[in-house]
Amino acid sequence: MDNKLKYAVFGAGSWATAIVKMLSENLDGIGWYMRSVYTKEHLLKEQHNPSYLSSVEFHTEKLKLSNDIDEIANYADVLIFVIPSAFIYSELQKLTVDIKDKIVVSAVKGIIPESGLLVGEHFHDIYHIPFDNIAVIAGPCHAEEVALERLSYLTISCADQEKAQIIADTLSSDYIKTKISDDVIGTEYAVMLKNIYAIAAGIAHGLGYGDNFQSVLMSNAIREMKRFIKKVHKMKRNINNSAYLGDLLVTGYSVFSRNRMFGNMVGKGYTVKSAQMEMNMVAEGYYATKSAYELNQKNEKKTQIPIISAVYAILYQNKNPKKVFKKLTEKLD
Amino acid sequence: MDNKLKYAVFGAGSWATAIVKMLSENLDGIGWYMRSVYTKEHLLKEQHNPSYLSSVEFHTEKLKLSNDIDEIANYADVLIFVIPSAFIYSELQKLTVDIKDKIVVSAVKGIIPESGLLVGEHFHDIYHIPFDNIAVIAGPCHAEEVALERLSYLTISCADQEKAQIIADTLSSDYIKTKISDDVIGTEYAVMLKNIYAIAAGIAHGLGYGDNFQSVLMSNAIREMKRFIKKVHKMKRNINNSAYLGDLLVTGYSVFSRNRMFGNMVGKGYTVKSAQMEMNMVAEGYYATKSAYELNQKNEKKTQIPIISAVYAILYQNKNPKKVFKKLTEKLD
Repeated sequence: MDNKLKYAVFGAGSWATAIVKMLSENLDGIGWYMRSVYTKEHLLKEQHNPSYLSSVEFHTEKLKLSNDIDEIANYADVLIFVIPSAFIYSELQKLTVDIKDKIVVSAVKGIIPESGLLVGEHFHDIYHIPFDNIAVIAGPCHAEEVALERLSYLTISCADQEKAQIIADTLSSDYIKTKISDDVIGTEYAVMLKNIYAIAAGIAHGLGYGDNFQSVLMSNAIREMKRFIKKVHKMKRNINNSAYLGDLLVTGYSVFSRNRMFGNMVGKGYTVKSAQMEMNMVAEGYYATKSAYELNQKNEKKTQIPIISAVYAILYQNKNPKKVFKKLTEKLD
Repeated sequence: MDNKLKYAVFGAGSWATAIVKMLSENLDGIGWYMRSVYTKEHLLKEQHNPSYLSSVEFHTEKLKLSNDIDEIANYADVLIFVIPSAFIYSELQKLTVDIKDKIVVSAVKGIIPESGLLVGEHFHDIYHIPFDNIAVIAGPCHAEEVALERLSYLTISCADQEKAQIIADTLSSDYIKTKISDDVIGTEYAVMLKNIYAIAAGIAHGLGYGDNFQSVLMSNAIREMKRFIKKVHKMKRNINNSAYLGDLLVTGYSVFSRNRMFGNMVGKGYTVKSAQMEMNMVAEGYYATKSAYELNQKNEKKTQIPIISAVYAILYQNKNPKKVFKKLTEKLD
């Protein structure tokens, strides 16, 4: 397998835009699918994404932009999906070409709500992609810092380590360092779970808990994440590697995280609905909470997941955040 | 052993003041030694420490204040030392009474520079305190949040678990939750090492690295801490417990940490000397860096400690922070 593979990115949010920027450092032709005609026209005319990371200038002559998902899927060998999990199912309905021989890379942060599947599983089940051709990109990485070319580290996971390395090399640059891993499922769950813990951090902040509690919460969160992932996919992994702990920290400590912001509003007394309306979006962690909680409910021997359960009680069972967190504090240590 | 033990605190900085406050929630008589006559007089007259956590009001009729270290050592059964590691050696020179039957608790954050010993070891070697009577208090806990009565968690370590529990119970209150541990040495090292990592976080920030890098740095720091502590004291411990990871995070992410602030100035181009003069103090992590580095140098098989080595090179070998950190980024993942 040589490195003359063609790459394409699906999605035009901030993380998608950041990944196109990373690829642009190494590749001359990159496919880029986006739903919005306006975004595409603006990119072609002004060389930047009008809505996200608009400081990043693209050499658009190097990009193959399209609003036709099939066209971009046909164009490339490596398809990188960077669409919010809440929309990926409906976006993929438009895909009609056969992609079973492609390499599919997920940079989606969550579970597909309609199927309850991890993105990798979804592509395997529905599009018959072999697991050896499914990879995951994990941070810790705020897209905004990629725009500023601030040093960031990515982990590329794939069962086939050679493919993981090729993708990693293609994303690497002066400001992006990469490592590879074979823990695809663990990484996918970590990426999803961290958003729930970011909501928890936001709720705690909104309720008036301070930095001392935040650090205890994060210390408990990484232990809970380890238990959760071990249960769903037992293998040797160091949960303190950047793809797990690092990603948890960059999200859980970020005041810009939309999940943390959502949690903060709920902690301050907004209803879930009004916080979502105020933010004009649904934070990924909202869906992740339901998926993770229900997945654990299905286990015969349940894992102890007090933080996820607390967030679930607040978001889905209309429980009082103050009371729920008061109880949660008794379970942490 | 009943719980009618008398407690005393040695030191009058912010952490000492916070511990006296915690004890005040449960005890009627507390010994409090402080060097400064002015602080003592002010406390008696105004009911608060003039220099630290001055919002905290004390019922001074419950306190036995003294500038005579022997008097307070004689008064109590449990002696809690909360003096910066740089001053504890000289302060202890004033202690002439026999304390070998006392319980000694260290809330000192570091190694004693003069002896290169952990505080517990120092009391064992010099004062013949049996290890069963030596305990350590670890956070994660900013004193400032104790003053605000914000929920905080402490870990009390002692080889004798019964004593650990008694001390823990005496510190517990509505806003202080405690757990116990038997890892005295590991906890002492963790408390010391975190300050070095906080300096590293500060240097990185001063050099312009962002949040993505900070999370990678912390993820590498906890792995490095685990290796370091395992080498000096091998036992079963979960490095992600609050006393280790939590304490690292509360310090490494705090913009108020004096260690982080010191590192930040060095990263921004201050010399070590001028940063110390500007801050009008020497951050604990400065001494800890030397101790930890030299301890590792003495090992036959050295542990990989790239972060500590980088901080050492900058603080003690006059190396250029920018170049040292550029090299460090190659070693992290």
